[in-house]
Amino acid sequence: MRSLAIERERVWTSEVGSHVGERVTLAGWLHRFRPLSNVAFLILRDAKGLAQVVVEEQALRAQLDGLYNESVLRVTGTVVAVPQVPDGVEIHDPSVEILSAAAAPPPFDLFRPVLQPPLATLLDHQPLMLRHPRQRALFQLSAAAMAGFRATLSSLDFVEIQTPKIVGSATEGGANVFKIDYLGRPAYLSQSPQLYKQLMVGVFERVFEVGPAFRAEPHDTPRHLNEFVSLDAELGFIHDHRDVMAVLTHTLRGMLDALRTDAAGALALLGLADKLPVVLAAPAEIPVVTFTDALALIARGTGEDLAGEPDLAPAHERWLGEWARREHGSDFLFVTGYPAATKPFYTHPDPANPAFTNAFDLLFRGVELVSGGQRLHRYEDYCRVLAERHMNEDAFTDFLEAFRHGMPPHGGFAIGLERFIARLVEAPNVRETTLFPRDLHRLTP
Amino acid sequence: MRSLAIERERVWTSEVGSHVGERVTLAGWLHRFRPLSNVAFLILRDAKGLAQVVVEEQALRAQLDGLYNESVLRVTGTVVAVPQVPDGVEIHDPSVEILSAAAAPPPFDLFRPVLQPPLATLLDHQPLMLRHPRQRALFQLSAAAMAGFRATLSSLDFVEIQTPKIVGSATEGGANVFKIDYLGRPAYLSQSPQLYKQLMVGVFERVFEVGPAFRAEPHDTPRHLNEFVSLDAELGFIHDHRDVMAVLTHTLRGMLDALRTDAAGALALLGLADKLPVVLAAPAEIPVVTFTDALALIARGTGEDLAGEPDLAPAHERWLGEWARREHGSDFLFVTGYPAATKPFYTHPDPANPAFTNAFDLLFRGVELVSGGQRLHRYEDYCRVLAERHMNEDAFTDFLEAFRHGMPPHGGFAIGLERFIARLVEAPNVRETTLFPRDLHRLTP
Repeated sequence: MRSLAIERERVWTSEVGSHVGERVTLAGWLHRFRPLSNVAFLILRDAKGLAQVVVEEQALRAQLDGLYNESVLRVTGTVVAVPQVPDGVEIHDPSVEILSAAAAPPPFDLFRPVLQPPLATLLDHQPLMLRHPRQRALFQLSAAAMAGFRATLSSLDFVEIQTPKIVGSATEGGANVFKIDYLGRPAYLSQSPQLYKQLMVGVFERVFEVGPAFRAEPHDTPRHLNEFVSLDAELGFIHDHRDVMAVLTHTLRGMLDALRTDAAGALALLGLADKLPVVLAAPAEIPVVTFTDALALIARGTGEDLAGEPDLAPAHERWLGEWARREHGSDFLFVTGYPAATKPFYTHPDPANPAFTNAFDLLFRGVELVSGGQRLHRYEDYCRVLAERHMNEDAFTDFLEAFRHGMPPHGGFAIGLERFIARLVEAPNVRETTLFPRDLHRLTP
Repeated sequence: MRSLAIERERVWTSEVGSHVGERVTLAGWLHRFRPLSNVAFLILRDAKGLAQVVVEEQALRAQLDGLYNESVLRVTGTVVAVPQVPDGVEIHDPSVEILSAAAAPPPFDLFRPVLQPPLATLLDHQPLMLRHPRQRALFQLSAAAMAGFRATLSSLDFVEIQTPKIVGSATEGGANVFKIDYLGRPAYLSQSPQLYKQLMVGVFERVFEVGPAFRAEPHDTPRHLNEFVSLDAELGFIHDHRDVMAVLTHTLRGMLDALRTDAAGALALLGLADKLPVVLAAPAEIPVVTFTDALALIARGTGEDLAGEPDLAPAHERWLGEWARREHGSDFLFVTGYPAATKPFYTHPDPANPAFTNAFDLLFRGVELVSGGQRLHRYEDYCRVLAERHMNEDAFTDFLEAFRHGMPPHGGFAIGLERFIARLVEAPNVRETTLFPRDLHRLTP
């Protein structure tokens, strides 16, 4: 039932095929106008796609010829089946209402199949550039991925939370935190919902959040941004990090399922319909290597001396991504057992070898996509690690209160949304899959 | 199918009734321990509710008696039907594993039906206080409301977006903006996604966003916070603000439906199952009064002289809320036609009377819950109003680019999530329905 006027009064370009022989009203943007000798074609773009409108009337032709592309039109016409055109239908005998004439021609051709300008130019004109069907398709994927994340976790009894982004102290410690003037007091932008989502395990046991995270890192790399969308989950009553990895695997499957169902058109447009990554299902799960074994594998494969390395460099992650693809047929690879020294204070040690941890990363096509793991859950353990790391316990008073009063073994993970989509479409730069990127140089649009 | 270990290994307290005669494993918090002369009762709380465990064994009784409330336990026992207890079932013959002993007694009794301390004390201990079944129920309502918002708009072809919260200039103008040190440059926290969601109408026609909004107002009122969750929507190809009001009405119905289906337990616990507001359906829609008529009504009703008032005071909104309830049987009331002078620059004037606007507020039980309206969509109109208001056009260059290149008539609305839940449960202070409030005095927890 279409109960609202906005639904009743127009059909989407994607629906035109089911209205052959009818007179329909479309609305959208003048994507392109192509005057030929005795006929002209108006390509109308709406949120769903394109429609070809055949213009024969001379007065209308002259009127449209005087409009800049991107003018906004309402078009009423008859749907005619035309087997030889790409969509199989055209709009004939149109009447056109100009809702809003563009004031200037676009700075680049939005009707080309692929946009030509370099990334920096496109980003400068992002409000327009996003109108290009391929560009906006990327953000249809983002929307579907978020919906799949939420739907999968909701079906596992996770509860959605919204935690504050203005915080009284740096969540994860460290210097990479944006400072705010908070009504005359210092405050900070949240680096992650980490501590809040842990507190909320005490309330709902299983929680998730989709929201912005902020890192004041003066990076200038193709994979870092100063603001990104973090898909966070945290759950209690686990045995160890492997329960978290199982939930993450299940969630990734749900996100990819949502892409297939909710964003089929966007996937097809981007040529990705049959190129989605495989999340291996039981009995062949996503492969897992320990950090120690990963270093040994890379050293053997590359001849590098990696003894004592505290972390994986991007080149090492790429090597591991190729190895996982080659040896396991997997786009994903879990790396577990990172050294304790490189991980935040709340990380749970590996009980069998406390110099290492129950933290993991998930590499997706050779790039770190997810970090996660088991967290400490005992009050006395937190008191100990804060002292060992010479961290100021006062900054964590509220956080510690939850642990003083009983917290179950728990863990969680965080997926970077923009990075997920970037790897999915194999975009070399995460800015290509970020709606309005924030980086060292870019605060606008 | 329960494919994950976290699902297979325990049953929720809410599921115990369907396992009579079986031995089940529960997990949760020691909500209360009540030793009587020959028997003791352990009330176990998990994310779903409470279960009563009967302890007869002396050694176990002594062990539990030595634990503080809020210790974390795993309990395995036999489900026995006991018609005379509230749930109709008990857990007998338990074995108990202490997963995490609390280090101290809670600062207030979490097992009381209603928490006793004043709001400020509760907020100081929010990580614990939220564990109380009534407190956490409020945030189950929030989660359901967000899910209903998204589901309703998704079904109307709205696309979810995530816009940046760090912005290069103040979105709505005005002084109430938090300033950030952005890698050595000044930047600001987004007051709303207003301008971004308008740009995105050019891309997806219909968009929504659920995210934080920030206002640096040194308010100290029961209905203002410095950070809140904004449920934003914006849509193109409207006739005027009435199309936006129709979509908002439809969305509110969807949110209330989601509360009934997703949060039935929380509603029952809060005594609200049959007290949800009515969103009047056609033919009796939500009543609408113009600002001018509203002032006249209030003046007539109260004897106040309101000639020339530029806006409604909170007391006036309360009066109108009672009037709508009394005269129209409605918990909601639209007020339209606000004076142009009090509304932001992007507000579309009323074509019949340009001193007034196509902006509206929606009052919910006498409090402004939603603001929305039709926006300007023509480039030349923006240039004119920015000049008239002596605003710096350079700060809006990116925003204006979208309008230079064709934007349809559009409008939208923003619902304050915390305020919606506060009015729904009739909480006198919006802090009661905010997970971790941020105000003049409170930056933690």
